[in-house]
Amino acid sequence: MAASESQLIERYFRELGARREDTVLGIGDDAALLRVPGDCELVLTTDALIEGVHFLPGAPARALGHRALAVNLSDIAAMGASPSWALLSLNLPAAEDPWLREFAAGFGALARSHEVALVGGNLSRGALSITVELAGLVPAGQALRRDGAHAGDELYVSGSVGDAAGGLKLLQGEVTAPAAETAYLQRRFEYPTPRVALGAALRGIASACIDVSDGVYIDATRLLAASGCAARIELERLPLSAPLRRAFGELAWRPALCGGEDYELCFTAAPAQAGAVAAAAARTGQAVTRIGALRPGTGLTLAAAGSVMQFSPSAFDHFGD
Amino acid sequence: MAASESQLIERYFRELGARREDTVLGIGDDAALLRVPGDCELVLTTDALIEGVHFLPGAPARALGHRALAVNLSDIAAMGASPSWALLSLNLPAAEDPWLREFAAGFGALARSHEVALVGGNLSRGALSITVELAGLVPAGQALRRDGAHAGDELYVSGSVGDAAGGLKLLQGEVTAPAAETAYLQRRFEYPTPRVALGAALRGIASACIDVSDGVYIDATRLLAASGCAARIELERLPLSAPLRRAFGELAWRPALCGGEDYELCFTAAPAQAGAVAAAAARTGQAVTRIGALRPGTGLTLAAAGSVMQFSPSAFDHFGD
Repeated sequence: MAASESQLIERYFRELGARREDTVLGIGDDAALLRVPGDCELVLTTDALIEGVHFLPGAPARALGHRALAVNLSDIAAMGASPSWALLSLNLPAAEDPWLREFAAGFGALARSHEVALVGGNLSRGALSITVELAGLVPAGQALRRDGAHAGDELYVSGSVGDAAGGLKLLQGEVTAPAAETAYLQRRFEYPTPRVALGAALRGIASACIDVSDGVYIDATRLLAASGCAARIELERLPLSAPLRRAFGELAWRPALCGGEDYELCFTAAPAQAGAVAAAAARTGQAVTRIGALRPGTGLTLAAAGSVMQFSPSAFDHFGD
Repeated sequence: MAASESQLIERYFRELGARREDTVLGIGDDAALLRVPGDCELVLTTDALIEGVHFLPGAPARALGHRALAVNLSDIAAMGASPSWALLSLNLPAAEDPWLREFAAGFGALARSHEVALVGGNLSRGALSITVELAGLVPAGQALRRDGAHAGDELYVSGSVGDAAGGLKLLQGEVTAPAAETAYLQRRFEYPTPRVALGAALRGIASACIDVSDGVYIDATRLLAASGCAARIELERLPLSAPLRRAFGELAWRPALCGGEDYELCFTAAPAQAGAVAAAAARTGQAVTRIGALRPGTGLTLAAAGSVMQFSPSAFDHFGD
């Protein structure tokens, strides 16, 4: 006999993630009850992973559990907030124990490492898709928004960009690379590392922030549009990992600029904050790289070898991408 | 050229629902920022509707917009809380403007009527499924939980039960009924009315509460299990609507007891609270019916014409139902 939704939830999800003292009531009632400190704002986000759209059919369940939470943690990180509670809606074609065990292991490990409690959700039969809702807390008035940047600010990105898009191309078999580079880049796609500590450390330092889910070009453009500024990015400054350079050579800048799924932070800060940015990066063990500067106007200009580069991103951000 | 996810969100979802003063930042950043009063607990729930599982292919988009929010409002109602903010994750095979317009109209009208602001979400291409996450507020320590009932309490249900399951059978063509009954019952399935005002009015009066999403039998059993009590339901007391009686005759008790999707409230209260229950019902314009009583022990007994009835619910609550 098939297990019921309640039995599966009990088996795999009941105690998943961290225990938190501010969880009054978790899984098992009509809704969760949670305590939000009076001096904090609540931060809410949701993001979904759909088979065939955001991941390849047959993708490992553990990686999906990790990634479904990671993409949401990245949104919380981009607000400079601390994650706290998650809800999980899982649509599955069939309830297979090994798949669920692996999925829960990937989700649970990342949740525990970020002090996130799983407090609700549901399981349904359907085409494979995973929707996570994540709540976080941020001291009132201190969230990092997209609209706070000013002309004159400097533009930064954390970590390295392009790895995830490179890893996806390798997984899809569109390109090939040596085993070590392939393993590194695929892992960057399957197990993205949300920059939660860095986001929180940038409160009071960064003027605006966004996470890089659709590529630096698109996401920086969104930040600029929200802030009413223009910017110029120096292509040579884009932080590229050694495996990406080795696997993609001269073309590595393309996934770095236009590939998505990196879940790095793209942020701005006044030049006077450069030291504070470096200190926040050092304190959280996170590389950050200044890739350009903001100016009055609109739009994003790219420069290579000191010259403005003609660039027209082909159809990005279409519905369903 | 296909519209982008951002354009579609801008067109249909940007200002959907109520405006709330406690929304610091809604749609348009990495996450929403919200203010939770210090004397309230946050209530979080999520529920999904999947084509072919929770609704029939080709179901009207306006009804889906209503119902996707209603099933979540019902969870908030069952906690005695007030709904406040929603997130929407919509997986769609194609971005069709007429469908989206109708969906947003159904969602938006219900959201406004309950003072709910839509503050985030995402649109993706995929098999049609709708996941809503809903946040609400409840005075700290006053939420209605499933585990507060005691032996001796009385068992109540709001409104009438079985209509939605009857309506679904008519939609599926499994049975037929005259036009007026068919219209009424189908509407009860497609446009359930979450009992939000009643739930809030029962704070301090009801000892436990659950919403009826899987039928009175299953949901009352869940409440009893959480509270560690038994109960007996008098079958004749189940509140059946006149259209359900006319359409289903002698068998109307079956959808009433075992059919889901009613989104009524099933709750308990001490006998001394009977007057307060009636007053809360009157104040909120809601019928409530006492259908049985709690006793020590475990499990739910059914009685018809004063005699205990043998009843074994066939395979309910299986994964994917």
